[in-house]
Parts: sequence; C-alpha cells; structure tokens
Amino acid sequence: VSPGIPAEETRISDSTVRRLSGYYRILEELQEQGETTVSSYELARRAGVTPAQVRKDLSFFGHFGKRGTGYAVRQLFPKIQSILGLDRRWRVCLVGAGNLAHALFAYKEFAREGFEIHAVLDNDPEKIGQGWSGLTVEPYETLARVVRERKLDIGIITTPASAAQEVADRLVAAGIHGILNFAPRKLFVAPQVNLRNVNLAIELESLSFALK
Amino acid sequence: VSPGIPAEETRISDSTVRRLSGYYRILEELQEQGETTVSSYELARRAGVTPAQVRKDLSFFGHFGKRGTGYAVRQLFPKIQSILGLDRRWRVCLVGAGNLAHALFAYKEFAREGFEIHAVLDNDPEKIGQGWSGLTVEPYETLARVVRERKLDIGIITTPASAAQEVADRLVAAGIHGILNFAPRKLFVAPQVNLRNVNLAIELESLSFALK
Repeated sequence: VSPGIPAEETRISDSTVRRLSGYYRILEELQEQGETTVSSYELARRAGVTPAQVRKDLSFFGHFGKRGTGYAVRQLFPKIQSILGLDRRWRVCLVGAGNLAHALFAYKEFAREGFEIHAVLDNDPEKIGQGWSGLTVEPYETLARVVRERKLDIGIITTPASAAQEVADRLVAAGIHGILNFAPRKLFVAPQVNLRNVNLAIELESLSFALK
Repeated sequence: VSPGIPAEETRISDSTVRRLSGYYRILEELQEQGETTVSSYELARRAGVTPAQVRKDLSFFGHFGKRGTGYAVRQLFPKIQSILGLDRRWRVCLVGAGNLAHALFAYKEFAREGFEIHAVLDNDPEKIGQGWSGLTVEPYETLARVVRERKLDIGIITTPASAAQEVADRLVAAGIHGILNFAPRKLFVAPQVNLRNVNLAIELESLSFALK
C-alpha cells in the first residue's frame, strides 16, 4: 500500500469524492496565483464547507497539513490529482451523436483533465460519417471493435432514454468498466462496472430549493 | 412558520439538498410502483447512504416516519417536492443558443419538474431567428425586456466561458435571482443572487476515482 492511499479506497463516499473535486479546483487556482500554503480554514471557506470537514476528508488519504502552517499547495495538489485518477489519461467514447454529445465534445475541461474522446458512435445514417474536428461519427454496430482496438476505458451515453440500457449492455460486453450516463433512465449493470448517472435537473432543483 | 419547514432553511447544506433530490426520485419511483410505505433502511439502500443519514436529513423538515412502520410514501413525496420547490412552476431563459442549450431544451425532465423554458437568446446573427419548437432565438440585447415582460425567474448560462460573467451581470441587472451556470468560469454575483455552477467534468472525476 503506497503512503497516503488507503487500501479500501472504495469505501470513500461519493460526497467525499465530490468535495475532493472541489478542493482540486481550488488548489489549482491557488497554484496559478502563486500561493504556497493554504490553511484548512481558507480551503473550507472557498469550498463552502467547515474546516473540520476539510481535515476529515483529507485525513482519509494521509497526513498533509502541519498545525499552524497549513497545507503545502505544491504537495497537496498532485496528491489529490492522483487520488482522483487525474494524473493519467482516460480513453473515452461517446455513444449518441446528438446535441449533448456535441456539447461534451467541445467541453475543453474534459481534455484538460485527461479525458480524451477517441470515438463518437451513432446508429442514425444521417449522422454516421459526419466529421467532428478530427473524428468521424462511426456506426453504432462497430462499438465492440472500436472499444477493443482503441483500448477505450470509459463510455459516455448520450442517447435517448429508450436506447440507454441496450448501449450500456453493449459497452459492458465490449469490456468497458466505466460508464457515464446522461440519459434520464435508471440503468442496470454488473457490480464490477462503475456507473455514474448525470441528472441535469438536480442542479436546477438545488436552485429552486434556494429560491423558493 | 409552517409545520415541517424550518425558518432557517438556507442553513441546509448543498449535500443535503442533493440527497433530498435523490430521495425525491426514489419516492416517485416507489409511488409509481404502488408502494405505500418505505423504511429508512430501504430508502438508504436505494440512495446509497446510511439509514442514520436518511433519518437525519428528513428530521430537518419535521417528523415524517413512524418507528416500525417507516415513511408513508404519499405523505413524504409531496413534502420533499415542496421542500425542493418542485410543486410550482419556474420560468427559465437560456442564454447562449449552442449545442448544450439545444440539449437542455430537449431535456424532458426539466419541464416535468416545473422548469419551463420561455426564451432562448444569443448574439450570433446566424442563430437569431432560428425556430426551436415553439420558440424563436431572440437577440441577446433584448434580454432585460424579455426577463421583465415574461416574468422570468431563472437564467441558464450556456455561453462560452469568456461571455459568462457579462451575461450573469445582465441577468442580475434584469432582476433574475437564480442562475445556473454551465460555462467553465467562476462567476461573481451579488450575495442575494443564487448561483449554481455545473461542472460536467466532476462526474467524470468520480468515475476515474472509482476506476483507477
């Protein structure tokens, strides 16, 4: 077991990972601003959580901070980057070449964090063959071959809800272990597959909660 | 103060609201399946949290459950719906008529939960005048008038990052109190404005965390 990385990392909750993503962005910003240290108070203030929460979250992964001086930005940033798996590249395909896929394809944050889109697939004859700055939309039926030949790690589902389960099954059959699902449908996959559902309405819900 | 709704609801954390959104979906599903009661254990299992967390989250808003019989689905569902502000309609505009706006416009969950898109605006002459099933893309410079005349509550920013702050300023000047920002740029707004940032990369980060 390498220092700072617990053996049972899968026990870390989704909320913790989400907060780590937040700390990661804040540390990146601090580093760009030339800051060398940050206190748990300042990190907490920027992340909108309590200092105790920051210390608890980071304690899962080792002892980073020094009492009185805070965290060293240059040490903590790459540590969190590595914890989140952002110090390597992930090979991604998009299944469903609609507007959302277009938007995700153009989303520069993905590439910047190591998520590289290597294929876009669809079953619509009008979309197959479209050029997407460097890539060509490929037929959905070639999915298994594309995943294997290009050694893809992650599949992003941007199809209509009705197609999503079938696509998930095919991705898993092709050897994909990570799925990000944007279709508003609950999907079922084998327990060894990591599935994340993105519900775009949830953010609007937290806004309506605050507004009402 | 109405029963079950605390006076200082704004102290409820974002994580709690996010979990409430999860419970809301589970209860909706249970209701559709004809279930009448649900235990905190079952709700916790489906939401991927602990039963103690469920009880704690719901205790903020009153006493719903009965020891031994669990929560009444038909009582808890509308309660959470109301807490989240989903028992009313919200009038929304999209600023930036690109692919992401198209995808959000087509996203049926929004309308189903009461978020109604009443305007789409852009400053690109090629986009202005486009018909979007019932709506026409309008010039960005008419934003203030559109917000006032159509009594809009929420603005969704789907512009490039470079334009996002200017758009946020204009939305606020026009009287908008809730902003959902999809542009990958940190925005600054007056404290009375509710701003939520959607970072599409965060979901991929939690996937890479689990995969590595």
